[in-house]
Amino acid sequence: MKLLRYGNPGEERPGLLDAGGTVRDLSGHVADIDGAALSPEVLDRLRALDPETLPAVAEPGRLGPCVNRVGKFVCIGLNYSDHAEETGATVPSEPVAFMKATSAICGPNDPVIKPRGSTKLDWEVELAFVVGSPVSYADEETARAAIAGYFVCHDVSERAFQMERQGQWMKGKGCDSFGPIGPWLVTADEVGDPGQLAMWLEVNGKRYQDGSTQTMVYKPAFLLSYMSQFMSFQPGDIITTGTPAGVGLGQNPPVFLDVGDVVELGIEKLGTQRQTVVPAT
Amino acid sequence: MKLLRYGNPGEERPGLLDAGGTVRDLSGHVADIDGAALSPEVLDRLRALDPETLPAVAEPGRLGPCVNRVGKFVCIGLNYSDHAEETGATVPSEPVAFMKATSAICGPNDPVIKPRGSTKLDWEVELAFVVGSPVSYADEETARAAIAGYFVCHDVSERAFQMERQGQWMKGKGCDSFGPIGPWLVTADEVGDPGQLAMWLEVNGKRYQDGSTQTMVYKPAFLLSYMSQFMSFQPGDIITTGTPAGVGLGQNPPVFLDVGDVVELGIEKLGTQRQTVVPAT
Repeated sequence: MKLLRYGNPGEERPGLLDAGGTVRDLSGHVADIDGAALSPEVLDRLRALDPETLPAVAEPGRLGPCVNRVGKFVCIGLNYSDHAEETGATVPSEPVAFMKATSAICGPNDPVIKPRGSTKLDWEVELAFVVGSPVSYADEETARAAIAGYFVCHDVSERAFQMERQGQWMKGKGCDSFGPIGPWLVTADEVGDPGQLAMWLEVNGKRYQDGSTQTMVYKPAFLLSYMSQFMSFQPGDIITTGTPAGVGLGQNPPVFLDVGDVVELGIEKLGTQRQTVVPAT
Repeated sequence: MKLLRYGNPGEERPGLLDAGGTVRDLSGHVADIDGAALSPEVLDRLRALDPETLPAVAEPGRLGPCVNRVGKFVCIGLNYSDHAEETGATVPSEPVAFMKATSAICGPNDPVIKPRGSTKLDWEVELAFVVGSPVSYADEETARAAIAGYFVCHDVSERAFQMERQGQWMKGKGCDSFGPIGPWLVTADEVGDPGQLAMWLEVNGKRYQDGSTQTMVYKPAFLLSYMSQFMSFQPGDIITTGTPAGVGLGQNPPVFLDVGDVVELGIEKLGTQRQTVVPAT
Protein backbone atom coordinates (compact mmCIF):
# COMPACT_ATOMS: atom_id res chain seq x y z
CA MET A 1 0.00 0.00 0.00
CA LYS A 2 1.30 3.46 -0.93
CA LEU A 3 0.16 6.32 1.29
CA LEU A 4 0.74 9.98 0.52
CA ARG A 5 -0.35 13.51 1.30
CA TYR A 6 -1.35 15.96 -1.46
CA GLY A 7 -2.23 19.63 -1.50
CA ASN A 8 -0.71 22.95 -0.56
CA PRO A 9 1.68 23.19 2.41
CA GLY A 10 -0.29 22.90 5.63
CA GLU A 11 -3.46 21.89 3.80
CA GLU A 12 -2.48 18.40 2.65
CA ARG A 13 -5.08 15.63 2.51
CA PRO A 14 -4.37 11.93 3.00
CA GLY A 15 -4.29 9.83 -0.13
CA LEU A 16 -3.56 6.37 -1.45
CA LEU A 17 -1.81 5.62 -4.73
CA ASP A 18 -3.63 2.77 -6.41
CA ALA A 19 -2.09 0.09 -8.61
CA GLY A 20 -2.87 2.13 -11.72
CA GLY A 21 -1.06 5.20 -10.42
CA THR A 22 -4.21 7.16 -9.54
CA VAL A 23 -4.33 9.10 -6.28
CA ARG A 24 -7.39 8.16 -4.21
CA ASP A 25 -8.79 10.38 -1.45
CA LEU A 26 -8.41 8.71 1.96
CA SER A 27 -9.88 11.54 4.03
CA GLY A 28 -13.07 9.60 4.60
CA HIS A 29 -11.06 6.96 6.47
CA VAL A 30 -8.14 8.72 8.21
CA ALA A 31 -7.68 12.36 9.18
CA ASP A 32 -4.06 12.44 8.03
CA ILE A 33 -1.06 10.21 7.35
CA ASP A 34 0.56 10.48 10.78
CA GLY A 35 1.34 8.34 13.79
CA ALA A 36 -2.33 7.73 14.51
CA ALA A 37 -2.89 6.35 11.00
CA LEU A 38 0.14 4.08 11.03
CA SER A 39 -0.77 1.57 13.74
CA PRO A 40 -1.06 -2.05 12.54
CA GLU A 41 -4.82 -1.89 13.21
CA VAL A 42 -5.47 1.19 11.10
CA LEU A 43 -3.18 -0.02 8.31
CA ASP A 44 -5.08 -3.33 8.26
CA ARG A 45 -8.32 -1.41 8.00
CA LEU A 46 -6.99 0.67 5.08
CA ARG A 47 -5.63 -2.44 3.40
CA ALA A 48 -9.11 -3.97 3.51
CA LEU A 49 -10.55 -1.11 1.45
CA ASP A 50 -11.14 -1.56 -2.25
CA PRO A 51 -9.24 1.39 -3.79
CA GLU A 52 -11.83 1.54 -6.57
CA THR A 53 -14.39 2.66 -4.00
CA LEU A 54 -12.28 5.66 -2.95
CA PRO A 55 -12.77 8.97 -4.78
CA ALA A 56 -10.17 9.42 -7.53
CA VAL A 57 -8.32 12.73 -7.31
CA ALA A 58 -8.17 14.17 -10.81
CA GLU A 59 -5.44 16.70 -10.07
CA PRO A 60 -3.60 15.96 -6.84
CA GLY A 61 -1.12 18.76 -7.55
CA ARG A 62 1.75 19.11 -5.10
CA LEU A 63 2.76 16.18 -2.93
CA GLY A 64 3.46 17.02 0.71
CA PRO A 65 5.77 15.13 3.05
CA CYS A 66 4.39 11.58 3.20
CA VAL A 67 4.18 11.65 7.03
CA ASN A 68 2.80 14.52 9.10
CA ARG A 69 3.38 15.42 12.76
CA VAL A 70 6.73 13.66 12.94
CA GLY A 71 7.75 13.56 16.60
CA LYS A 72 11.46 13.05 16.07
CA PHE A 73 13.66 12.69 13.06
CA VAL A 74 16.68 10.52 13.82
CA CYS A 75 19.45 10.19 11.24
CA ILE A 76 22.16 7.55 11.03
CA GLY A 77 25.60 8.60 9.82
CA LEU A 78 28.36 6.72 8.04
CA ASN A 79 26.17 3.65 7.58
CA TYR A 80 27.46 2.56 4.15
CA SER A 81 31.02 1.30 3.94
CA ASP A 82 31.67 3.05 0.61
CA HIS A 83 30.37 6.40 1.94
CA ALA A 84 32.40 6.16 5.16
CA GLU A 85 35.47 5.59 3.01
CA GLU A 86 34.84 8.58 0.74
CA THR A 87 34.50 10.91 3.74
CA GLY A 88 37.77 9.64 5.19
CA ALA A 89 36.02 7.88 8.08
CA THR A 90 35.79 4.22 8.92
CA VAL A 91 32.57 2.32 9.56
CA PRO A 92 31.81 2.95 13.24
CA SER A 93 31.68 0.08 15.73
CA GLU A 94 28.08 1.02 16.49
CA PRO A 95 25.71 3.38 14.67
CA VAL A 96 26.40 7.11 14.69
CA ALA A 97 23.15 9.01 15.28
CA PHE A 98 22.13 12.64 15.11
CA MET A 99 18.89 14.55 14.74
CA LYS A 100 17.32 16.70 12.08
CA ALA A 101 14.88 19.39 13.20
CA THR A 102 11.37 18.36 12.16
CA SER A 103 10.99 21.87 10.71
CA ALA A 104 13.33 20.68 7.94
CA ILE A 105 10.69 18.29 6.60
CA CYS A 106 9.11 19.15 3.23
CA GLY A 107 7.49 17.56 0.23
CA PRO A 108 9.47 15.35 -2.17
CA ASN A 109 9.47 17.89 -4.99
CA ASP A 110 9.54 21.13 -3.01
CA PRO A 111 12.54 23.40 -3.64
CA VAL A 112 15.71 22.88 -1.64
CA ILE A 113 16.49 26.23 -0.03
CA LYS A 114 20.18 27.17 -0.08
CA PRO A 115 20.70 28.88 3.29
CA ARG A 116 22.32 32.29 3.54
CA GLY A 117 26.07 31.86 3.80
CA SER A 118 25.96 28.31 2.46
CA THR A 119 29.09 27.27 0.55
CA LYS A 120 28.96 23.47 0.78
CA LEU A 121 25.42 22.36 0.04
CA ASP A 122 25.43 18.61 -0.47
CA TRP A 123 23.07 15.71 -1.26
CA GLU A 124 22.41 12.27 0.24
CA VAL A 125 19.83 9.78 -1.01
CA GLU A 126 18.58 7.70 1.93
CA LEU A 127 16.14 4.97 2.84
CA ALA A 128 13.94 6.17 5.71
CA PHE A 129 11.23 4.44 7.72
CA VAL A 130 8.43 5.47 10.04
CA VAL A 131 7.45 3.85 13.31
CA GLY A 132 3.86 2.60 13.65
CA SER A 133 3.85 1.18 17.18
CA PRO A 134 5.45 2.42 20.44
CA VAL A 135 8.94 0.98 20.90
CA SER A 136 11.21 0.87 23.94
CA TYR A 137 14.12 -1.48 24.62
CA ALA A 138 12.94 -3.56 21.68
CA ASP A 139 14.71 -6.60 20.33
CA GLU A 140 15.24 -6.71 16.58
CA GLU A 141 12.12 -8.78 15.90
CA THR A 142 9.89 -6.41 17.85
CA ALA A 143 11.49 -3.45 16.13
CA ARG A 144 10.90 -4.98 12.71
CA ALA A 145 7.20 -5.41 13.50
CA ALA A 146 7.00 -1.77 14.61
CA ILE A 147 8.15 -0.37 11.24
CA ALA A 148 5.03 0.82 9.43
CA GLY A 149 6.64 1.69 6.12
CA TYR A 150 9.55 2.98 4.09
CA PHE A 151 10.15 6.00 1.89
CA VAL A 152 12.82 8.04 0.16
CA CYS A 153 14.49 10.76 2.23
CA HIS A 154 16.86 13.35 0.85
CA ASP A 155 19.23 14.11 3.73
CA VAL A 156 20.27 17.52 2.41
CA SER A 157 23.39 18.71 4.20
CA GLU A 158 25.45 21.87 4.49
CA ARG A 159 28.95 20.53 5.12
CA ALA A 160 30.47 23.76 6.40
CA PHE A 161 27.60 24.24 8.86
CA GLN A 162 27.85 20.56 9.78
CA MET A 163 31.58 20.28 10.33
CA GLU A 164 33.21 23.70 10.54
CA ARG A 165 30.89 25.57 12.91
CA GLN A 166 31.82 24.13 16.33
CA GLY A 167 29.26 21.31 16.17
CA GLN A 168 27.16 19.46 16.39
CA TRP A 169 26.08 18.14 12.98
CA MET A 170 22.49 19.32 13.50
CA LYS A 171 23.55 22.82 12.40
CA GLY A 172 24.15 21.59 8.87
CA LYS A 173 21.40 18.97 8.80
CA GLY A 174 18.29 20.70 10.09
CA CYS A 175 18.01 23.77 7.85
CA ASP A 176 14.55 24.44 6.38
CA SER A 177 13.81 22.17 3.38
CA PHE A 178 16.69 19.81 4.23
CA GLY A 179 14.32 16.89 4.75
CA PRO A 180 12.19 16.07 1.68
CA ILE A 181 10.33 12.80 2.37
CA GLY A 182 8.24 10.82 -0.07
CA PRO A 183 6.76 10.78 -2.71
CA TRP A 184 4.84 8.15 -0.74
CA LEU A 185 5.16 5.86 2.20
CA VAL A 186 5.21 2.22 1.10
CA THR A 187 3.98 -0.11 3.82
CA ALA A 188 6.48 -2.66 5.10
CA ASP A 189 4.57 -5.66 3.74
CA GLU A 190 4.86 -4.29 0.21
CA VAL A 191 8.61 -3.49 0.46
CA GLY A 192 9.75 -6.93 1.58
CA ASP A 193 13.47 -7.00 2.35
CA PRO A 194 14.65 -3.36 2.79
CA GLY A 195 18.23 -4.52 2.37
CA GLN A 196 17.87 -5.26 -1.36
CA LEU A 197 16.90 -1.90 -2.88
CA ALA A 198 18.76 -0.06 -5.61
CA MET A 199 19.14 3.69 -4.97
CA TRP A 200 20.46 6.57 -7.02
CA LEU A 201 20.83 10.35 -7.16
CA GLU A 202 21.53 12.70 -10.08
CA VAL A 203 22.43 16.39 -10.19
CA ASN A 204 21.53 18.17 -13.43
CA GLY A 205 21.23 14.77 -15.08
CA LYS A 206 24.62 13.47 -13.98
CA ARG A 207 24.50 10.36 -11.80
CA TYR A 208 26.55 10.79 -8.63
CA GLN A 209 25.10 8.12 -6.37
CA ASP A 210 24.38 4.65 -7.74
CA GLY A 211 24.17 2.23 -4.85
CA SER A 212 22.05 -0.27 -3.05
CA THR A 213 20.88 -0.88 0.48
CA GLN A 214 22.84 -4.14 0.16
CA THR A 215 25.93 -2.21 1.31
CA MET A 216 24.14 -0.69 4.28
CA VAL A 217 26.01 -1.72 7.43
CA TYR A 218 23.30 -1.50 10.09
CA LYS A 219 19.85 -2.42 8.74
CA PRO A 220 16.50 -0.79 9.65
CA ALA A 221 15.24 -3.29 12.25
CA PHE A 222 18.62 -3.32 13.96
CA LEU A 223 18.75 0.49 13.93
CA LEU A 224 15.34 0.88 15.56
CA SER A 225 16.18 -1.79 18.15
CA TYR A 226 19.52 -0.08 18.81
CA MET A 227 18.10 3.44 19.10
CA SER A 228 15.30 2.18 21.38
CA GLN A 229 17.96 1.34 23.97
CA PHE A 230 18.52 5.09 24.30
CA MET A 231 15.01 6.50 23.98
CA SER A 232 11.45 5.41 23.31
CA PHE A 233 9.88 5.80 19.89
CA GLN A 234 6.31 6.80 19.21
CA PRO A 235 4.15 6.25 16.13
CA GLY A 236 5.11 8.91 13.59
CA ASP A 237 8.79 9.06 14.55
CA ILE A 238 11.12 8.54 11.61
CA ILE A 239 14.65 7.25 11.16
CA THR A 240 16.69 7.82 8.02
CA THR A 241 19.42 5.28 7.57
CA GLY A 242 22.42 6.88 5.89
CA THR A 243 23.68 7.25 2.35
CA PRO A 244 25.90 5.27 -0.02
CA ALA A 245 28.98 6.67 -1.78
CA GLY A 246 28.80 9.54 -4.23
CA VAL A 247 28.02 12.63 -2.17
CA GLY A 248 29.40 15.98 -3.29
CA LEU A 249 31.99 16.10 -0.54
CA GLY A 250 33.37 12.79 -1.77
CA GLN A 251 34.11 14.04 -5.32
CA ASN A 252 37.63 15.02 -6.30
CA PRO A 253 37.51 17.97 -6.23
CA PRO A 254 34.32 18.28 -4.13
CA VAL A 255 31.13 19.36 -5.92
CA PHE A 256 28.41 21.33 -4.15
CA LEU A 257 24.92 22.43 -5.09
CA ASP A 258 24.09 25.96 -6.17
CA VAL A 259 20.95 27.89 -6.97
CA GLY A 260 19.28 26.51 -10.09
CA ASP A 261 20.67 23.01 -9.79
CA VAL A 262 18.19 20.17 -10.13
CA VAL A 263 18.50 17.08 -7.97
CA GLU A 264 16.66 13.86 -8.81
CA LEU A 265 16.81 10.78 -6.63
CA GLY A 266 15.01 7.53 -6.10
CA ILE A 267 14.93 4.14 -4.46
CA GLU A 268 13.64 0.91 -5.99
CA LYS A 269 9.96 0.31 -5.08
CA LEU A 270 9.72 3.68 -3.30
CA GLY A 271 9.52 6.24 -6.11
CA THR A 272 11.48 9.36 -6.95
CA GLN A 273 11.97 12.96 -5.83
CA ARG A 274 12.98 16.04 -7.81
CA GLN A 275 14.10 19.34 -6.29
CA THR A 276 15.38 22.63 -7.64
CA VAL A 277 17.77 24.63 -5.48
CA VAL A 278 16.55 28.15 -4.68
CA PRO A 279 18.10 30.91 -2.56
CA ALA A 280 16.93 31.66 0.98
CA THR A 281 14.84 34.82 1.07
CA MET B 1 2.59 35.96 34.32
CA LYS B 2 3.26 32.34 35.27
CA LEU B 3 1.72 29.71 33.02
CA LEU B 4 1.65 26.01 33.81
CA ARG B 5 0.00 22.71 32.99
CA TYR B 6 -1.48 20.48 35.68
CA GLY B 7 -2.98 17.00 35.71
CA ASN B 8 -2.00 13.47 34.81
CA PRO B 9 0.38 12.82 31.90
CA GLY B 10 -1.41 13.42 28.62
CA GLU B 11 -4.42 14.97 30.37
CA GLU B 12 -2.90 18.25 31.56
CA ARG B 13 -5.00 21.42 31.64
CA PRO B 14 -3.66 24.95 31.17
CA GLY B 15 -3.31 27.01 34.32
CA LEU B 16 -2.03 30.29 35.66
CA LEU B 17 -0.26 30.74 38.98
CA ASP B 18 -1.64 33.88 40.63
CA ALA B 19 0.26 36.28 42.88
CA GLY B 20 -0.92 34.39 45.96
CA GLY B 21 0.37 31.05 44.68
CA THR B 22 -3.03 29.65 43.73
CA VAL B 23 -3.39 27.75 40.45
CA ARG B 24 -6.20 29.18 38.30
CA ASP B 25 -7.86 27.23 35.50
CA LEU B 26 -7.13 28.80 32.11
CA SER B 27 -8.99 26.26 30.00
CA GLY B 28 -11.80 28.72 29.34
CA HIS B 29 -9.31 30.96 27.53
CA VAL B 30 -6.68 28.73 25.87
CA ALA B 31 -6.82 25.07 24.91
CA ASP B 32 -3.30 24.38 26.16
CA ILE B 33 0.02 26.06 26.93
CA ASP B 34 1.65 25.52 23.54
CA GLY B 35 2.86 27.49 20.56
CA ALA B 36 -0.63 28.71 19.74
CA ALA B 37 -1.04 30.18 23.23
CA LEU B 38 2.33 31.91 23.29
CA SER B 39 1.93 34.52 20.57
CA PRO B 40 2.21 38.14 21.76
CA GLU B 41 -1.49 38.60 20.98
CA VAL B 42 -2.71 35.67 23.08
CA LEU B 43 -0.33 36.51 25.92
CA ASP B 44 -1.64 40.09 25.93
CA ARG B 45 -5.18 38.74 26.10
CA LEU B 46 -4.29 36.49 29.05
CA ARG B 47 -2.48 39.34 30.76
CA ALA B 48 -5.64 41.41 30.57
CA LEU B 49 -7.59 38.83 32.58
CA ASP B 50 -8.19 39.41 36.28
CA PRO B 51 -6.85 36.18 37.85
CA GLU B 52 -9.52 36.47 40.56
CA THR B 53 -12.16 35.79 37.93
CA LEU B 54 -10.56 32.48 36.93
CA PRO B 55 -11.64 29.29 38.72
CA ALA B 56 -9.24 28.42 41.56
CA VAL B 57 -7.96 24.84 41.37
CA ALA B 58 -8.16 23.40 44.89
CA GLU B 59 -5.88 20.45 44.21
CA PRO B 60 -3.84 20.87 41.03
CA GLY B 61 -1.89 17.67 41.79
CA ARG B 62 0.94 16.85 39.42
CA LEU B 63 2.50 19.56 37.29
CA GLY B 64 3.13 18.60 33.68
CA PRO B 65 5.79 20.06 31.40
CA CYS B 66 5.05 23.80 31.21
CA VAL B 67 4.92 23.76 27.39
CA ASN B 68 3.14 21.16 25.28
CA ARG B 69 3.66 20.18 21.64
CA VAL B 70 7.27 21.32 21.54
CA GLY B 71 8.38 21.25 17.90
CA LYS B 72 12.10 21.13 18.53
CA PHE B 73 14.26 21.11 21.63
CA VAL B 74 17.62 22.75 20.94
CA CYS B 75 20.32 22.62 23.60
CA ILE B 76 23.43 24.75 23.89
CA GLY B 77 26.61 23.13 25.19
CA LEU B 78 29.61 24.55 27.05
CA ASN B 79 27.96 27.93 27.46
CA TYR B 80 29.33 28.80 30.91
CA SER B 81 33.04 29.43 31.21
CA ASP B 82 33.29 27.60 34.55
CA HIS B 83 31.48 24.52 33.20
CA ALA B 84 33.59 24.42 30.04
CA GLU B 85 36.66 24.46 32.25
CA GLU B 86 35.47 21.62 34.50
CA THR B 87 34.83 19.37 31.49
CA GLY B 88 38.30 20.07 30.13
CA ALA B 89 36.95 22.08 27.20
CA THR B 90 37.37 25.73 26.34
CA VAL B 91 34.55 28.15 25.63
CA PRO B 92 33.78 27.64 21.94
CA SER B 93 34.22 30.49 19.46
CA GLU B 94 30.53 30.17 18.59
CA PRO B 95 27.73 28.25 20.35
CA VAL B 96 27.79 24.46 20.33
CA ALA B 97 24.29 23.14 19.67
CA PHE B 98 22.67 19.74 19.80
CA MET B 99 19.13 18.41 20.08
CA LYS B 100 17.16 16.54 22.67
CA ALA B 101 14.34 14.31 21.49
CA THR B 102 11.03 15.92 22.43
CA SER B 103 10.01 12.52 23.87
CA ALA B 104 12.45 13.31 26.71
CA ILE B 105 10.21 16.12 27.98
CA CYS B 106 8.42 15.54 31.30
CA GLY B 107 7.02 17.40 34.27
CA PRO B 108 9.27 19.26 36.74
CA ASN B 109 8.77 16.75 39.55
CA ASP B 110 8.35 13.55 37.55
CA PRO B 111 10.89 10.79 38.25
CA VAL B 112 14.16 10.76 36.34
CA ILE B 113 14.42 7.33 34.75
CA LYS B 114 17.89 5.78 34.89
CA PRO B 115 18.20 3.99 31.53
CA ARG B 116 19.22 0.36 31.33
CA GLY B 117 22.99 0.15 31.19
CA SER B 118 23.46 3.67 32.52
CA THR B 119 26.66 4.18 34.50
CA LYS B 120 27.19 7.95 34.28
CA LEU B 121 23.85 9.64 34.92
CA ASP B 122 24.47 13.34 35.44
CA TRP B 123 22.63 16.58 36.17
CA GLU B 124 22.60 20.09 34.66
CA VAL B 125 20.45 22.99 35.85
CA GLU B 126 19.65 25.24 32.89
CA LEU B 127 17.74 28.34 31.91
CA ALA B 128 15.43 27.53 28.99
CA PHE B 129 13.13 29.66 26.89
CA VAL B 130 10.24 29.13 24.52
CA VAL B 131 9.63 30.89 21.21
CA GLY B 132 6.31 32.71 20.79
CA SER B 133 6.65 34.11 17.24
CA PRO B 134 8.08 32.60 14.04
CA VAL B 135 11.78 33.43 13.68
CA SER B 136 14.13 33.15 10.71
CA TYR B 137 17.41 35.00 10.10
CA ALA B 138 16.51 37.24 13.03
CA ASP B 139 18.74 39.94 14.43
CA GLU B 140 19.18 39.96 18.18
CA GLU B 141 16.44 42.55 18.77
CA THR B 142 13.89 40.58 16.76
CA ALA B 143 14.93 37.39 18.52
CA ARG B 144 14.51 39.02 21.93
CA ALA B 145 10.96 40.06 21.04
CA ALA B 146 10.17 36.49 19.92
CA ILE B 147 10.98 34.93 23.30
CA ALA B 148 7.66 34.29 25.04
CA GLY B 149 9.00 33.18 28.39
CA TYR B 150 11.61 31.42 30.49
CA PHE B 151 11.63 28.34 32.71
CA VAL B 152 13.87 25.88 34.49
CA CYS B 153 15.11 22.90 32.46
CA HIS B 154 16.97 19.96 33.90
CA ASP B 155 19.25 18.82 31.09
CA VAL B 156 19.67 15.27 32.41
CA SER B 157 22.59 13.56 30.71
CA GLU B 158 24.10 10.09 30.49
CA ARG B 159 27.78 10.84 29.95
CA ALA B 160 28.77 7.39 28.71
CA PHE B 161 25.92 7.39 26.17
CA GLN B 162 26.83 10.99 25.26
CA MET B 163 30.56 10.63 24.81
CA GLU B 164 31.60 6.97 24.63
CA ARG B 165 29.07 5.52 22.20
CA GLN B 166 30.33 6.76 18.82
CA GLY B 167 28.24 9.95 18.90
CA GLN B 168 26.47 12.11 18.65
CA TRP B 169 25.57 13.63 22.03
CA MET B 170 21.85 13.09 21.41
CA LYS B 171 22.26 9.46 22.52
CA GLY B 172 22.98 10.59 26.07
CA LYS B 173 20.72 13.63 26.07
CA GLY B 174 17.39 12.44 24.68
CA CYS B 175 16.52 9.48 26.92
CA ASP B 176 12.98 9.41 28.29
CA SER B 177 12.55 11.77 31.27
CA PHE B 178 15.81 13.62 30.50
CA GLY B 179 13.97 16.91 29.91
CA PRO B 180 11.93 18.06 32.94
CA ILE B 181 10.67 21.60 32.21
CA GLY B 182 8.88 23.92 34.61
CA PRO B 183 7.36 24.21 37.19
CA TRP B 184 5.95 27.09 35.18
CA LEU B 185 6.74 29.31 32.25
CA VAL B 186 7.38 32.90 33.36
CA THR B 187 6.63 35.39 30.62
CA ALA B 188 9.56 37.48 29.41
CA ASP B 189 8.14 40.77 30.72
CA GLU B 190 8.11 39.38 34.26
CA VAL B 191 11.66 37.97 34.09
CA GLY B 192 13.39 41.17 33.00
CA ASP B 193 17.10 40.57 32.34
CA PRO B 194 17.65 36.81 31.95
CA GLY B 195 21.38 37.38 32.47
CA GLN B 196 21.04 38.14 36.18
CA LEU B 197 19.48 35.01 37.65
CA ALA B 198 20.92 32.87 40.44
CA MET B 199 20.69 29.12 39.81
CA TRP B 200 21.46 26.04 41.89
CA LEU B 201 21.18 22.26 42.03
CA GLU B 202 21.40 19.85 44.95
CA VAL B 203 21.63 16.06 45.08
CA ASN B 204 20.38 14.46 48.29
CA GLY B 205 20.61 17.87 49.94
CA LYS B 206 24.19 18.58 48.93
CA ARG B 207 24.66 21.65 46.76
CA TYR B 208 26.70 20.87 43.64
CA GLN B 209 25.77 23.75 41.35
CA ASP B 210 25.62 27.28 42.70
CA GLY B 211 25.90 29.69 39.82
CA SER B 212 24.28 32.52 37.96
CA THR B 213 23.32 33.31 34.42
CA GLN B 214 25.80 36.19 34.80
CA THR B 215 28.53 33.77 33.73
CA MET B 216 26.59 32.56 30.70
CA VAL B 217 28.71 33.25 27.61
CA TYR B 218 26.06 33.48 24.86
CA LYS B 219 22.78 34.98 26.13
CA PRO B 220 19.24 33.94 25.13
CA ALA B 221 18.48 36.61 22.51
CA PHE B 222 21.86 36.05 20.88
CA LEU B 223 21.35 32.29 20.90
CA LEU B 224 17.97 32.49 19.19
CA SER B 225 19.32 34.96 16.63
CA TYR B 226 22.34 32.70 16.07
CA MET B 227 20.34 29.48 15.72
CA SER B 228 17.87 31.19 13.39
CA GLN B 229 20.70 31.56 10.85
CA PHE B 230 20.63 27.76 10.53
CA MET B 231 16.92 26.98 10.75
CA SER B 232 13.57 28.64 11.32
CA PHE B 233 11.88 28.54 14.71
CA GLN B 234 8.18 28.15 15.27
CA PRO B 235 6.06 29.05 18.30
CA GLY B 236 6.48 26.29 20.86
CA ASP B 237 10.12 25.51 20.00
CA ILE B 238 12.42 25.65 23.00
CA ILE B 239 16.10 26.32 23.56
CA THR B 240 17.93 25.43 26.74
CA THR B 241 21.03 27.48 27.27
CA GLY B 242 23.66 25.38 29.02
CA THR B 243 24.76 24.82 32.60
CA PRO B 244 27.23 26.40 35.03
CA ALA B 245 29.97 24.51 36.87
CA GLY B 246 29.24 21.71 39.30
CA VAL B 247 28.00 18.80 37.22
CA GLY B 248 28.76 15.26 38.39
CA LEU B 249 31.37 14.70 35.70
CA GLY B 250 33.25 17.74 36.98
CA GLN B 251 33.69 16.39 40.53
CA ASN B 252 36.97 14.84 41.60
CA PRO B 253 36.34 11.94 41.52
CA PRO B 254 33.19 12.16 39.34
CA VAL B 255 29.82 11.65 41.05
CA PHE B 256 26.87 10.15 39.19
CA LEU B 257 23.21 9.65 40.03
CA ASP B 258 21.78 6.33 41.07
CA VAL B 259 18.32 4.95 41.80
CA GLY B 260 16.83 6.60 44.87
CA ASP B 261 18.81 9.82 44.60
CA VAL B 262 16.83 13.04 44.89
CA VAL B 263 17.71 16.04 42.74
CA GLU B 264 16.42 19.53 43.55
CA LEU B 265 17.15 22.52 41.38
CA GLY B 266 15.93 26.02 40.81
CA ILE B 267 16.48 29.39 39.18
CA GLU B 268 15.70 32.77 40.68
CA LYS B 269 12.20 34.00 39.67
CA LEU B 270 11.46 30.71 37.88
CA GLY B 271 10.74 28.23 40.67
CA THR B 272 12.12 24.81 41.56
CA GLN B 273 12.04 21.19 40.45
CA ARG B 274 12.45 17.98 42.45
CA GLN B 275 13.05 14.55 40.96
CA THR B 276 13.72 11.09 42.34
CA VAL B 277 15.80 8.70 40.24
CA VAL B 278 14.01 5.46 39.39
CA PRO B 279 15.14 2.46 37.30
CA ALA B 280 13.96 1.91 33.74
CA THR B 281 11.37 -0.85 33.60
